[in-house]
Amino acid sequence: MELNRCCIHSITNKPWKLDEALDKYARAGIGGVSVWQSSLEGFGAKKAASLVKEAGLEVVSYVRGGFFAHPSGAERQKAVDTNKRQLEEAAELGAPLIVLVCGASPEQSLDASREQIRAGIEAILPEAESLNVRLAIEPLHPMYAADRSAINTLGQANDMAEKIQSDFVGVAVDVYHLWWDEHLKQEILRCGKNGNLLAYHVCDWKTQTADLLNDRGLMGEGCIDLKLIRSWVEEAGFQGFHEVEIFSNHYWQMDQDIYLEKITQAFLKSC
Amino acid sequence: MELNRCCIHSITNKPWKLDEALDKYARAGIGGVSVWQSSLEGFGAKKAASLVKEAGLEVVSYVRGGFFAHPSGAERQKAVDTNKRQLEEAAELGAPLIVLVCGASPEQSLDASREQIRAGIEAILPEAESLNVRLAIEPLHPMYAADRSAINTLGQANDMAEKIQSDFVGVAVDVYHLWWDEHLKQEILRCGKNGNLLAYHVCDWKTQTADLLNDRGLMGEGCIDLKLIRSWVEEAGFQGFHEVEIFSNHYWQMDQDIYLEKITQAFLKSC
Repeated sequence: MELNRCCIHSITNKPWKLDEALDKYARAGIGGVSVWQSSLEGFGAKKAASLVKEAGLEVVSYVRGGFFAHPSGAERQKAVDTNKRQLEEAAELGAPLIVLVCGASPEQSLDASREQIRAGIEAILPEAESLNVRLAIEPLHPMYAADRSAINTLGQANDMAEKIQSDFVGVAVDVYHLWWDEHLKQEILRCGKNGNLLAYHVCDWKTQTADLLNDRGLMGEGCIDLKLIRSWVEEAGFQGFHEVEIFSNHYWQMDQDIYLEKITQAFLKSC
Repeated sequence: MELNRCCIHSITNKPWKLDEALDKYARAGIGGVSVWQSSLEGFGAKKAASLVKEAGLEVVSYVRGGFFAHPSGAERQKAVDTNKRQLEEAAELGAPLIVLVCGASPEQSLDASREQIRAGIEAILPEAESLNVRLAIEPLHPMYAADRSAINTLGQANDMAEKIQSDFVGVAVDVYHLWWDEHLKQEILRCGKNGNLLAYHVCDWKTQTADLLNDRGLMGEGCIDLKLIRSWVEEAGFQGFHEVEIFSNHYWQMDQDIYLEKITQAFLKSC
């Protein structure tokens, strides 16, 4: 895959401030950036938008909204309010899409959380439409079902998107969360067929994963068949950026220039 | 759930040697034990069988065979040979069942691993029949799909057991691996209906899981609705032991007498 189709999530190079990351990405020939909320610190969304434009990059998505599931109604309302603010930030940033980590609570059933997620998405949908920012439901690996997401398969994300049935609601497919699923191909095709395949995230699953959150692998160093999944995503009609999103204590400790070189080489070779 | 229906996996109290564990379990009123291979060290299967008998406990299962998936044919044959030896140990131990952690390899697709798992089970089936030891396919959490098991849902385990279609092949349901699955109830009922529900393992999923392998929770300290899943298992006709299987660096460091007291209290209250 060519680098002009590559987008990097700003958290991937967490040690860099946003302006530095944008400069480095542009010099490396990267085409797009997905901006994490934490990367806006010290800049704000409007300034960030102009920095991205100056660097000649495209904003692919704003990361991340969601976390709709709480046993308390007041907490759920707070989440809706937070998401509305984040939608405004996304619009200011010029992001066409916000990624939703939908939420879960260990204090209630996954079914209850899913119902609250649906209600939360529907509550922010009018804002999303008026701001022209789409909502991407991201199914998360089952190891995050306790407190991060009650949506743990692409099948569930497809169900949710199809139920809500809006041009402004779709799905983000992240190989890290979904690679193990025997139904992945059919669900990717279903997602594309229904017009819901809004984003595609890559990294790799390391065989010896040391940490549930921050030990993702660089593309090619794990066991995910990225070229096979890419072929399904393309078969489903997806033509957007391929987004590199890697949380890694290991790589965050590395010299980030050397790491970016590794990322671009891995992208060219394995994606 | 009463303690006479409780079985403990010997690895749960890893610091204890088998004879000590058996003595403590019997005094606590526990009804059964599942013996890990590592617990046979210094005893052997025959001596272990007599120790279990003396303690007045029932051997519920021998843990664990499997690991059938390898890219190399020689390695696959080695796995088959190892499993045959383990079946002999299980028979000597008096275990009616051996639990299979089926295997996976990061060097090949999950489909390829599943095909090798099926072939491996079929290769050891004649031994299992002649020794009167049943084989329980244990689906493992998707976070173990890289190298421990290519069977990651109860649906897949049911598919496999139904395909092989032998009275000597069934499934072990472990809540730790399966709790997140939206199809869990229907797959438990399917498993029971087809006569394949051979074992039921309990522990809990801690919201802040620190380690992918050895940070399981004690029943009641996590987010798994154990009583709900128990009701499904009972609805499916299961009448066997409820087996406590906890790998935990935290609990292994604790005084094991205090820990066993915690286990029995948790079992009585939460299972």
